[in-house]
Amino acid sequence: MRTFFIISHKFSGEINLNDLPGSGRIDLVTRCINSAIFLSHNIRRDILFYVFFLKIEVLIKIDSSRVKYLNPDERSTAALIRNAILKMKKGEKATPGFFIKKANLESALNEISKLGKIYYLHEFGKDLRTIEFGKAPVFILSDSVNMSEEEEKKIMNISEEVISVSPKVILASHAITIVNNELDRRGA
Amino acid sequence: MRTFFIISHKFSGEINLNDLPGSGRIDLVTRCINSAIFLSHNIRRDILFYVFFLKIEVLIKIDSSRVKYLNPDERSTAALIRNAILKMKKGEKATPGFFIKKANLESALNEISKLGKIYYLHEFGKDLRTIEFGKAPVFILSDSVNMSEEEEKKIMNISEEVISVSPKVILASHAITIVNNELDRRGA
Repeated sequence: MRTFFIISHKFSGEINLNDLPGSGRIDLVTRCINSAIFLSHNIRRDILFYVFFLKIEVLIKIDSSRVKYLNPDERSTAALIRNAILKMKKGEKATPGFFIKKANLESALNEISKLGKIYYLHEFGKDLRTIEFGKAPVFILSDSVNMSEEEEKKIMNISEEVISVSPKVILASHAITIVNNELDRRGA
Repeated sequence: MRTFFIISHKFSGEINLNDLPGSGRIDLVTRCINSAIFLSHNIRRDILFYVFFLKIEVLIKIDSSRVKYLNPDERSTAALIRNAILKMKKGEKATPGFFIKKANLESALNEISKLGKIYYLHEFGKDLRTIEFGKAPVFILSDSVNMSEEEEKKIMNISEEVISVSPKVILASHAITIVNNELDRRGA
């Protein structure tokens, strides 16, 4: 099992499917889901993907072993997120594999800290190629906004290690792809 | 300079911005462009990205050093491709950094073979971490459709090496991210 946890700083709950970047950069979140879960003509079945929407204090968990409807493109994934939020408001269940609830950053971090050792992805961390990962590693990333000092403090409190995947500052979705590749190579 | 060249097998020239997967999987092409060119809040300025649309025999080159309008999301990139095709039909110039023309696979491969050593990305290739790349490597990939025997023969004729980036069969866009990461690590 691998877990990815991303904090989305800008999303305020409304999704315009014709303007995903204008919808609090939900395009970025959907590309992170793509990177975490998709293989060629297949999906990974051992991924937990969490996104915490800071502004609305909502946590979505995607359990790839239970997912039924998921495509690699941004728009259809954004539609699943939109539906999950609508169903939460109505007290209904989201689409299979999607779990959504109100949460704050503390409770969200507390939930993932029980899953395995936490690795915080940051440009100034240790090279991931030199790290021995635990059995069910959990990777925390930010979106296009740097973590605030307060957020970083909370994350560092539960983190085993700060790791870097690239000498360049890269997109969150690309960082996820590189983490998956490193773990795939190790047969993890 | 790094060059990526992808063959798009399904795209027939029409783009519905509300259904990119249904538009000959142009969503996949846009994600490859994202992977090739984007850094966090920045774009790489040393990338040539080629996409050859097999069905309509059209070649688009994106020169990232000249690009002015490019965003990481799928829809806006698809809109740039759509505009480039419309402008080609009218005999007008495409948006800065985008170059489009009629071509066949032979002439397209001939063009990139002058740029540097060619590496064909394929699941059965040698691990890219063991390869010494030339100064301006060119990477050829397929989209969601495997290359035909005939296509593969033409590609193999100009290729230095067949390389693999992962023990798993992964998406083309993820493969591009991994190639960029390996070259970034080498300071290339």
